[in-house]
Amino acid sequence: MRQPLDGIRVVDLTRVLSGPFCTMLLGDMGAEVIKIEPPGKGDPVRAQGGIRDGLSWYFASFNRNKKSVELDLYGEEGKAQLAKLIQTADVLVDNFRPGVMARMGFGPERLKQLNPQLVTANINGYGSTGPYVDRPAFDFITQAMSGFMSVNGRADQEPLRSGQPITDLVAGLYAAFGIVNALRARDINGKGQHVESAMLNGILSFMAYLGSEHLMSGELPPRTGNDHPLVAPYGLYKASDGEVAVAPSNEVILRRFMRTIGLEELLDDPRFDHNDKRFARRDELNALISQRMQSETQATWIERLNAAGVPSGRVQNLAEVFADPQVLAQEMVMEVEHPGHGTVRMLGFPVKLDGTPCRVRLPAPDLGAHNDEVLGALRDLPQRAANDD
Amino acid sequence: MRQPLDGIRVVDLTRVLSGPFCTMLLGDMGAEVIKIEPPGKGDPVRAQGGIRDGLSWYFASFNRNKKSVELDLYGEEGKAQLAKLIQTADVLVDNFRPGVMARMGFGPERLKQLNPQLVTANINGYGSTGPYVDRPAFDFITQAMSGFMSVNGRADQEPLRSGQPITDLVAGLYAAFGIVNALRARDINGKGQHVESAMLNGILSFMAYLGSEHLMSGELPPRTGNDHPLVAPYGLYKASDGEVAVAPSNEVILRRFMRTIGLEELLDDPRFDHNDKRFARRDELNALISQRMQSETQATWIERLNAAGVPSGRVQNLAEVFADPQVLAQEMVMEVEHPGHGTVRMLGFPVKLDGTPCRVRLPAPDLGAHNDEVLGALRDLPQRAANDD
Repeated sequence: MRQPLDGIRVVDLTRVLSGPFCTMLLGDMGAEVIKIEPPGKGDPVRAQGGIRDGLSWYFASFNRNKKSVELDLYGEEGKAQLAKLIQTADVLVDNFRPGVMARMGFGPERLKQLNPQLVTANINGYGSTGPYVDRPAFDFITQAMSGFMSVNGRADQEPLRSGQPITDLVAGLYAAFGIVNALRARDINGKGQHVESAMLNGILSFMAYLGSEHLMSGELPPRTGNDHPLVAPYGLYKASDGEVAVAPSNEVILRRFMRTIGLEELLDDPRFDHNDKRFARRDELNALISQRMQSETQATWIERLNAAGVPSGRVQNLAEVFADPQVLAQEMVMEVEHPGHGTVRMLGFPVKLDGTPCRVRLPAPDLGAHNDEVLGALRDLPQRAANDD
Repeated sequence: MRQPLDGIRVVDLTRVLSGPFCTMLLGDMGAEVIKIEPPGKGDPVRAQGGIRDGLSWYFASFNRNKKSVELDLYGEEGKAQLAKLIQTADVLVDNFRPGVMARMGFGPERLKQLNPQLVTANINGYGSTGPYVDRPAFDFITQAMSGFMSVNGRADQEPLRSGQPITDLVAGLYAAFGIVNALRARDINGKGQHVESAMLNGILSFMAYLGSEHLMSGELPPRTGNDHPLVAPYGLYKASDGEVAVAPSNEVILRRFMRTIGLEELLDDPRFDHNDKRFARRDELNALISQRMQSETQATWIERLNAAGVPSGRVQNLAEVFADPQVLAQEMVMEVEHPGHGTVRMLGFPVKLDGTPCRVRLPAPDLGAHNDEVLGALRDLPQRAANDD
């Protein structure tokens, strides 16, 4: 065995982002992922973002370790092929709105009949029960509705969306987690089941202390920009050639911070000897700190502070991130050969297993590249009747 | 079998957020999670946030489904108990800096000797290789270094951190995903292994198309606030009594949107008949849309737009989120009895499995509540020598 999901076949009906991210994670762990795409067109992401040598790098980076098979799921022939494929599968993933699979003729009863051990998964916007079940979803909208935007941004300005399409990715990652759990349950009890991951639920589960504090107190957490809502000092301070992010998360680390910058005596100053006082006089304190930190460069402070045990770093843009020696040491940028389309640089594996590590076994496939291989193997499989729905 | 991780024992050395979130997810899936805490003090989060009836709701909401055992890991007796506990465990999770476990006498060789089938996991800031391996980490710092902040915020203003402690949570979720994969590998090949999840790597993997576009073009993605970087119209529009978030993600949905608000003719207007033109005249177009949308209420537009297949919603604060009928229908707020501390309201389960669903089997434990149960059972276990490290 080389990977945790060796021998697991995933039939992947997903498109765009949340679903392809989920199935990429499964593929990285060793699953055989068969991406079903509309004939001649494929996943819309194939045409999105920059195209080089005929390949969208956005598509390439989310569809590694997958095979591509074209099936027209609006037609009887395509549906018959899908039914056969499902008979051979361990997992079926879609990111349609709840109910779409049933309307296509693949409701829960039919799926159970085709393959009683199948693990099915649906990634959706709002869940499959409740008043919004039929609403179309999109990352920006679930960011707005979940409360994420209400806590993101500056105190004096409007709520802001995240720059990352975060609700898609969180939902995809939760779905992958749920699917592997369902596979482990099946390993033991022999039964398939249905997994559901909703964008709204996923991002809401990331509310952490903001959620628990509100549920206790009924108070609304403020937007605080780069300031901490409760602690000072904290934030970005100006060194001679740029800013330094500092986060002294407790009194011990705060003392280390103030000692390292030569301002430890302020912690005994009656103006600043308690967090409440520091918080109330935050602007005054921050000015003193920034004034002192002007004496050295960003790099010097970051080195000294980290050496003293104070979490510290700089705000990096993507060019700086992808040149960062730590990011490179962690192999978070990979080069993957795509025959006919050159070498694609893409993000690496975020979770590392030392015994059965993630690998790139296949580059992102050309549309329909595996039609013959996958559909050919179904030829001798008997067709089962579609007698429900 | 009632849950995917039934019978799995997790020894949990983590504290604060990333690690406790990971082990909560494992506990929600059925694992027995034994939380090891410093005697008399416990996880610092026990004293953080609002306290009601002697209980931090922040602590309660991240430590459901766990048992609490006090062990002094600086002392020989505590280490001996931990060694015995590890012999009985399936998974050992910590969120110390890399190398701390080895310095405590629990390096990889010792752990393998104690329990060859053990799955170990470390959640850290920057990974266990590379120049920053010894740096202390904190959510705000990894948000800064990962590029997240460089794409979050308004174009005319500074990079902004996320209001959610997102890098902690992403790292915790990836760790849980990695651990379940490692358990499945062990089910098959009988071998334990080491799982690692770094905050910097996790949030970087969420760069999605922002990452792939930069890797192809070398261009830096701009911060765009609530505007889409490439598409118009998109964003927040003013209805008569509040704003409506609208995200027409493709031409079909855009036409539905403009038809629903009675402005379809603008799509044939030479000023607005192509996305490039609409994007260039975004302010003019947005003004026309907002002017039209003033005619109806927020609720009316949200209902009409969703019915027409246009993703739409409103920016909700946490009071609105937790009163939202969809959030309630999805059981994303749970009430859990904590004997001696009353009823705690907390976030529900973000991923739903219909066959072996997540459950609350145990409320968050009082400090040391399971000392006798867990340590008592170790009494007859022979102690193994610590002959490495």
